[in-house]
Amino acid sequence: MEKVQLTIGEVAALAQDSLERHGCDNDNAAAVANVIARAERDGCHSHGLMRLPGYVAALDSGKVNGKARPEVEALAPALLRVQGDGGFAPLALQIGRDHLIEVTQKTGIAAMSLVNIHHFAALWGEIEPIAEAGLCAMACVSYKPAVIPAGGSKALYGTNPMAFGWPRKNAPPVVFDQASAVMARGEVMLAAREGKSLPDGVGVDAKGAATNDPDEVLKGALLAFGGYKGSSIAMMVELLAGALIGESLSVEAAVRDNNDGGPPRGGEFMLAMDPNLFGDADGWAERGEKLFGEILAQDGVRLPGDKRYLNRQESEKNGINITRENYDKILAL
Amino acid sequence: MEKVQLTIGEVAALAQDSLERHGCDNDNAAAVANVIARAERDGCHSHGLMRLPGYVAALDSGKVNGKARPEVEALAPALLRVQGDGGFAPLALQIGRDHLIEVTQKTGIAAMSLVNIHHFAALWGEIEPIAEAGLCAMACVSYKPAVIPAGGSKALYGTNPMAFGWPRKNAPPVVFDQASAVMARGEVMLAAREGKSLPDGVGVDAKGAATNDPDEVLKGALLAFGGYKGSSIAMMVELLAGALIGESLSVEAAVRDNNDGGPPRGGEFMLAMDPNLFGDADGWAERGEKLFGEILAQDGVRLPGDKRYLNRQESEKNGINITRENYDKILAL
Repeated sequence: MEKVQLTIGEVAALAQDSLERHGCDNDNAAAVANVIARAERDGCHSHGLMRLPGYVAALDSGKVNGKARPEVEALAPALLRVQGDGGFAPLALQIGRDHLIEVTQKTGIAAMSLVNIHHFAALWGEIEPIAEAGLCAMACVSYKPAVIPAGGSKALYGTNPMAFGWPRKNAPPVVFDQASAVMARGEVMLAAREGKSLPDGVGVDAKGAATNDPDEVLKGALLAFGGYKGSSIAMMVELLAGALIGESLSVEAAVRDNNDGGPPRGGEFMLAMDPNLFGDADGWAERGEKLFGEILAQDGVRLPGDKRYLNRQESEKNGINITRENYDKILAL
Repeated sequence: MEKVQLTIGEVAALAQDSLERHGCDNDNAAAVANVIARAERDGCHSHGLMRLPGYVAALDSGKVNGKARPEVEALAPALLRVQGDGGFAPLALQIGRDHLIEVTQKTGIAAMSLVNIHHFAALWGEIEPIAEAGLCAMACVSYKPAVIPAGGSKALYGTNPMAFGWPRKNAPPVVFDQASAVMARGEVMLAAREGKSLPDGVGVDAKGAATNDPDEVLKGALLAFGGYKGSSIAMMVELLAGALIGESLSVEAAVRDNNDGGPPRGGEFMLAMDPNLFGDADGWAERGEKLFGEILAQDGVRLPGDKRYLNRQESEKNGINITRENYDKILAL
């Protein structure tokens, strides 16, 4: 298959140009393009250029405001809210981030909610800059129903990822970002395309019966990881990124959505903590390193996010390869 | 098997008496006894009277201070720390709780760390009163190594439970409390006693090889729930309840512990949020109910904690049954 080699900057420029042609202003387009380019850079192709047609569709249908002006408000001494003005999440996150960091460095812990946004990206990219600023951070977001509650038969929860980041003094932060679904929908689609059957416990068909057939799972729903425990986490994400902050549950987001292929309107929940204020300013980083040392001392174990950092080094040296077919598709946008 | 029927108050009195005979003062004994009685009441026998010999052993060996005077300090506007004075966790939690609630109602979100405590109870009992006060809460605690990091072969993480609670206006809160291990050690012991084999993916033997033999798993280690995702959560718990707050990792707690059968010294991490301050004071509770309604509309699904509430009603009506054998064991303490 013919490949096109692009630098990270070229990926961003390509995305920015498409977004502006479809109605984004410069700030909104730049924020989304940056998210897409960083995903490609880190080998997270499922959240890279592959998403551009979805972003564009949501602009074309008028569902998303490409000229959104997100605004930050203080709700309480340790609570911030970003009103997303109906735009894509990246600009709202970018505008909120510095405020969240500043408040956290005063109060020790702070939460930031984002409402009236359209979220279509990976959470690790949102946690990373907060952890790079020396804070411990957590985030979660819901979507549209895709995962059944444990014991049930019908999709109710979104894939509902939750991410966590830990700052390190002489290394990039440790960040994990994991869906509440046992397997990403993209992986199920891949299995379907390759004619492979799924392992037990991945999903159910449209009638709620367990199946190993990826085509049937795509018509049905996914299970939560780890049975009822992952299901509890998916429930927690609905409560935090929906009920708590005054935004939609996944099931509400789906009802409102126009199904144009782009992200529905929803909310996001984030919190940050300043480890320097927890009373062991000298010890926390050292103890984190002790844990990571113990983890890496075992054969076959790696730290969450390590693969992303390896991909990043590789992309920064050698650029990003995409297929000619995908490249042409993007240009056609 | 002959049974002895006790009221909840009688269970508490029995526990309190034993604890005082072994060196607890009234306040410490009452706090621990209350935790034990509430566990028995809610059908959580693994954290009820069964733990009393462990509490007593830790007093007898001098590891735990039965006359601890926990003290609360403000570390930052939204951060509290309870110095546990080497005692059992319940009194430290009881003393910290009202402060945490009060601060959270001002700042919107607050964290409380507990250090120099010995934790031997279930987290749901600690989340519940905070959620009953109208706050959303989260807690986690580590222990001694019992769970291997995903891909590895040696126990590194504690069973590392994480709990979450959501307040409701006309019902008891929804609280989940789940270990990072795929199965509790107590359940593995039960399978061993009954000569049953374990399902795949529960544990490994002392050499780190997968096994279905519960006896071998007891000499080896448990796996995290849901593979690498549960393992990430176990890692997060080590960082929050250890590194962040300046207390031990599970692996450090084990080195220091005298293995008297009681809980090692460690820390606990809690956070609370006031949903009334997140900008949708009218809507959050209603939206939570909407989610719970959707969950319960599916056959075979229940809310986390519902079984505990049913057990509670039953115990409050008919008392608690314990075997004559266990009753005599407690009296012998």
